[in-house]
Amino acid sequence: MSDVFNHPWMGSLFGDPEVQALWSPEAQLVHYTAFEMALSHALEDVGRVPLGHGAAAAATLENTIIDPASLAGDVARDGLPIPALVRRWRAADPAHQDALHTGATSQDVMDTALALTLRAVSDLLARRLRSLDATLRDLDARFGDRPLMGRTRMQAALSIRVTDRLRSWRGPLAAQAHRLDAARAGVERLQLGGAVGTRHGFGDQGQAIANAMATRLSLSAPDHAWHSDRGGVVHYAACIAGLSGVLGKVGQDIALMAQQGIDDIRIAGGGGSSAMPHKSNPVLAELLVTLARLNAGSLSGMQHALIHEQERSGAAWMLEWALLPQMTLATGRAVTAAQALCNGVESMGDA
Amino acid sequence: MSDVFNHPWMGSLFGDPEVQALWSPEAQLVHYTAFEMALSHALEDVGRVPLGHGAAAAATLENTIIDPASLAGDVARDGLPIPALVRRWRAADPAHQDALHTGATSQDVMDTALALTLRAVSDLLARRLRSLDATLRDLDARFGDRPLMGRTRMQAALSIRVTDRLRSWRGPLAAQAHRLDAARAGVERLQLGGAVGTRHGFGDQGQAIANAMATRLSLSAPDHAWHSDRGGVVHYAACIAGLSGVLGKVGQDIALMAQQGIDDIRIAGGGGSSAMPHKSNPVLAELLVTLARLNAGSLSGMQHALIHEQERSGAAWMLEWALLPQMTLATGRAVTAAQALCNGVESMGDA
Amino acid sequence: MSDVFNHPWMGSLFGDPEVQALWSPEAQLVHYTAFEMALSHALEDVGRVPLGHGAAAAATLENTIIDPASLAGDVARDGLPIPALVRRWRAADPAHQDALHTGATSQDVMDTALALTLRAVSDLLARRLRSLDATLRDLDARFGDRPLMGRTRMQAALSIRVTDRLRSWRGPLAAQAHRLDAARAGVERLQLGGAVGTRHGFGDQGQAIANAMATRLSLSAPDHAWHSDRGGVVHYAACIAGLSGVLGKVGQDIALMAQQGIDDIRIAGGGGSSAMPHKSNPVLAELLVTLARLNAGSLSGMQHALIHEQERSGAAWMLEWALLPQMTLATGRAVTAAQALCNGVESMGDA
Amino acid sequence: MSDVFNHPWMGSLFGDPEVQALWSPEAQLVHYTAFEMALSHALEDVGRVPLGHGAAAAATLENTIIDPASLAGDVARDGLPIPALVRRWRAADPAHQDALHTGATSQDVMDTALALTLRAVSDLLARRLRSLDATLRDLDARFGDRPLMGRTRMQAALSIRVTDRLRSWRGPLAAQAHRLDAARAGVERLQLGGAVGTRHGFGDQGQAIANAMATRLSLSAPDHAWHSDRGGVVHYAACIAGLSGVLGKVGQDIALMAQQGIDDIRIAGGGGSSAMPHKSNPVLAELLVTLARLNAGSLSGMQHALIHEQERSGAAWMLEWALLPQMTLATGRAVTAAQALCNGVESMGDA
Repeated sequence: MSDVFNHPWMGSLFGDPEVQALWSPEAQLVHYTAFEMALSHALEDVGRVPLGHGAAAAATLENTIIDPASLAGDVARDGLPIPALVRRWRAADPAHQDALHTGATSQDVMDTALALTLRAVSDLLARRLRSLDATLRDLDARFGDRPLMGRTRMQAALSIRVTDRLRSWRGPLAAQAHRLDAARAGVERLQLGGAVGTRHGFGDQGQAIANAMATRLSLSAPDHAWHSDRGGVVHYAACIAGLSGVLGKVGQDIALMAQQGIDDIRIAGGGGSSAMPHKSNPVLAELLVTLARLNAGSLSGMQHALIHEQERSGAAWMLEWALLPQMTLATGRAVTAAQALCNGVESMGDA
Repeated sequence: MSDVFNHPWMGSLFGDPEVQALWSPEAQLVHYTAFEMALSHALEDVGRVPLGHGAAAAATLENTIIDPASLAGDVARDGLPIPALVRRWRAADPAHQDALHTGATSQDVMDTALALTLRAVSDLLARRLRSLDATLRDLDARFGDRPLMGRTRMQAALSIRVTDRLRSWRGPLAAQAHRLDAARAGVERLQLGGAVGTRHGFGDQGQAIANAMATRLSLSAPDHAWHSDRGGVVHYAACIAGLSGVLGKVGQDIALMAQQGIDDIRIAGGGGSSAMPHKSNPVLAELLVTLARLNAGSLSGMQHALIHEQERSGAAWMLEWALLPQMTLATGRAVTAAQALCNGVESMGDA
Repeated sequence: MSDVFNHPWMGSLFGDPEVQALWSPEAQLVHYTAFEMALSHALEDVGRVPLGHGAAAAATLENTIIDPASLAGDVARDGLPIPALVRRWRAADPAHQDALHTGATSQDVMDTALALTLRAVSDLLARRLRSLDATLRDLDARFGDRPLMGRTRMQAALSIRVTDRLRSWRGPLAAQAHRLDAARAGVERLQLGGAVGTRHGFGDQGQAIANAMATRLSLSAPDHAWHSDRGGVVHYAACIAGLSGVLGKVGQDIALMAQQGIDDIRIAGGGGSSAMPHKSNPVLAELLVTLARLNAGSLSGMQHALIHEQERSGAAWMLEWALLPQMTLATGRAVTAAQALCNGVESMGDA
Repeated sequence: MSDVFNHPWMGSLFGDPEVQALWSPEAQLVHYTAFEMALSHALEDVGRVPLGHGAAAAATLENTIIDPASLAGDVARDGLPIPALVRRWRAADPAHQDALHTGATSQDVMDTALALTLRAVSDLLARRLRSLDATLRDLDARFGDRPLMGRTRMQAALSIRVTDRLRSWRGPLAAQAHRLDAARAGVERLQLGGAVGTRHGFGDQGQAIANAMATRLSLSAPDHAWHSDRGGVVHYAACIAGLSGVLGKVGQDIALMAQQGIDDIRIAGGGGSSAMPHKSNPVLAELLVTLARLNAGSLSGMQHALIHEQERSGAAWMLEWALLPQMTLATGRAVTAAQALCNGVESMGDA
């Protein structure tokens, strides 16, 4: 149970295999390598290394096979995997080590990998949200005209229609999808700063190199490093937490609707109980609430990561590593759980 | 010490009198009244009340004087002040009570007052941030070329210049100001939904009334209520928490720079100690860190407020009341504290 | 609305006047003075000042009237009120200033005042919890034998009795009261450390002075200062947050029981609505949930205050100032709200 | 990077293999089985099943091999693994299914497994803390008498000795170890309640069965279930968060001491950098700060889990599953990281 998102049995409830795959060690190594290859090529492009060195170094990078587990010992000492990788890459091709990682630092590699990962996460979430909205629209078509008791402060108020309740789910989801989309520009950026964020190792060619790299990686190329500026990442985290929060409302509503005595919804496939096999527990509705509250706590931690001292804070940066991937998993799972839940709706409102 | 933002002595350290004034009971009553007057006029505009009734009701609203303290008893029972206010307004002008609060609900009034308050908060923050940036630009002009030891992971790395450090403050501040500006549209909206958010009391004139009201109040008029959709408000909270977080980095940096043995900054006006009168404590720098961490915790609570069940959640809505005003105070004070701190900088970097 | 605990109208819903009074500026000044008087006497007791000096200084302290608002200017600079107070006290009695604050520091005074305040808070909470338990026992006597549908995962499970539900409220409350009681020893301690926490200004008489002071103040006298050891304070905060959390469960249960269609409880005195005067909103039940979630966020901030660097951290300490008093207010109000709610119960279970 | 505690390379930095093993799926299955065996025996002991049935069922339980991954499909539907396990166990021994899980519910099994796991976690932490204290004592013996600049509010104050600083680490650690020890009784309890927490399936033999089970499992036997009373678990979480918080102070202090210009400590084995191989980053000191802040956010989530509605809340309970194991991992790692860090200290204070 130490990681419910990736666990032999709990993973089937909490897990999101697609998002998980985006964070896999193998996927991260692919991104690290992509950064370094882009850098090797760019160094050659702008003439900072002799002709052919960049391409040769890139070939070395592409052909070096790294066993993720083999990095463990180095990370225990260095606190991050890049120094060990660079040592291996340079050892594999001493003749072109001038084009290997030159001018870059670990954070450049790892933050760029983060940008590439979050881009894929965002694409996936956007696709899923379109599908979820279509399902909600379909529920509206099927049940929208039915009456439903509107409830305020947990008390019956006035009758509304199912379409009103569905609108209170769809509207916030659409708004949150829009906020998330707007937040992408703040993370889908090349990171390139070198040891202290000043690109000092590139002479006056820093921006040219950044532009060349960004083009290859299909990221934007800011005119400076964002090593200690975590605003974009934290804002992104707020947007996915907001998405799971909005889905938490949907889950809470459904759990309340499914109560005996209220009976505003009927859902197929609820969970059984070891003591009461007849029960049909709204497990996925509850899960939406759980994931929303989980992300709410994680976002608080991400905010603390904004206090990123000096040119690079190990303590603040590591906090992001521990929190952000899990937040994307929780958010991704919230969308698939909402989708499965809505797929199972057999009836809403008063027939 | 029960409220450091508004306390005879702690208030001078934590308080932000300008933001405080925007949340004063009197200011809120003005906003409540403005909502009701806009509604009275709009009801007449669209012909839902006889000619003259809207204007008469508005005049009554304008002329009724409410003693904030007199609402306490009603709020203890009702949980909010609007029912008592409506009773008084209607009692004051029985002949035009058809144009008083008709079709609206408490949340319409209070959320619209929130929108008006946050608009003023945002204007104020934007003005202050421009001033702070000008001060930082001035520091750059004075000290930007001086060398400074760049530090990563709390260790000396390579020499940078003061301008690099200042850029790591200015950039995130500008980005966060931009995010905050973008978040305004999500809160500067009329709230109008009636008892269960459906505008059922307005026939088919709901949008016309909303448009008329929004014009008077200089807010946008969404085509539906946002009673249970707290995404805009929570997103705004994330943006101001982000702003205080970015200022927390500035504060942490300054506190580290001011250490004896590091001596990267000299600031006038540090705090004295009762035991060591010679000390010059970087109180405002520390305060920036405190305010950032305070908002980080509050934002977590705001996220939980997204789980706003059914048509209106008392529990979730009250959570906003307790958190959001304080978050604006902390953020406002963070900007003024940063301003005062930067104003006091006598030297940066190695002379 | 900037401070719901102390607001002309919101205060009647959120406020706890008794706890508020314990934190009043006047009450804090009384505690500050009590600390200093105890120190003055103790300095004389152990012979560190000439006979009579301690008593004279104590008389000066007792007779000096401080206007809380007059401290604002100094606090804006020093970050805390003690340096200004010490300047005044010493100016008021230059002949005995050797017995005024000698060897102490601001944190000694303020943490000891905190200890005295929390002692009173704890006494008050304990009294109230006994009363609440008696009311719950009375409800058990009246309705305990009635059947009630037991609900798990928001679904009807098996019939239980009202006494079972009440036991699920009383048991955790009793356990939490016990935890809170056990946590008192960790906060009801004299703070005495001097400038850097070593009691260096007292020669080898530090413990003797601490013992004498503690006896006068009816606190314990630890054998060292706890300036940077915030474990006791944070543990106390966890215990009161736990108390409000347990009451949050009671509130959530009652709000669910009061739903139409469930009808497991009938309560007098629910809140009215501006749009639907017939409604009886379970405002106090919702408030219990709000206060629990509010404290959950605040406790997170308190945990960050444990990272209290070096001999004294301004940033971490100020975080406590902003959070802990409010946590006691929220907890105190949770108990009074639960009491009022239970007082209003007219029926539980199926008659 | 999706789970830094268990990752091919990040796991060597963040991971705690010993704590991880206590939460392994295999270890959890052992605990689930131990609960069920204790129940089978107890049912026979008190005569609720024919002689021999309990022992036979227990043998079946002991001999049934469960492949963790095979539970995934059931958990996706039921939300927890116990219903599927019970189906298998009963299918494996239809003749004695009267002694298999009779009267129990999933939460009984899983909470008891939690109790057994936390007992082992607590034992491990206590052992480690004794070792850490011994190392700190040793540092005191080696360097305690050396001078060190005492720092308050990040400013040089007065000279102290290394022993004073070490005392400010050891004291809070000892106090927190004591708090954690006191919190054990609140979690090392058998959970036994049945479907709705009333032990209704055991007639008047509920307590006798609980006592018999508790004896076998070396847990205490409370006189009622604690299904919805999460106070003990959340209090335990607060105590381990407190422990990591206190270690966060140690880490923050060491990172500050290791700054060039301060030079209050020299540590072997700091982390290298890909851009600056000469650096020796205080990675483990930073990690202590990260883990403390991580747990601070998680504790907030655990507090929300106190609002555990009715007889069992899926949403609140699942929040614990996602948070508590990770909190124990973070805490366990904090202790081993502090140990490794202190082991590496080569010098403290001014020689």
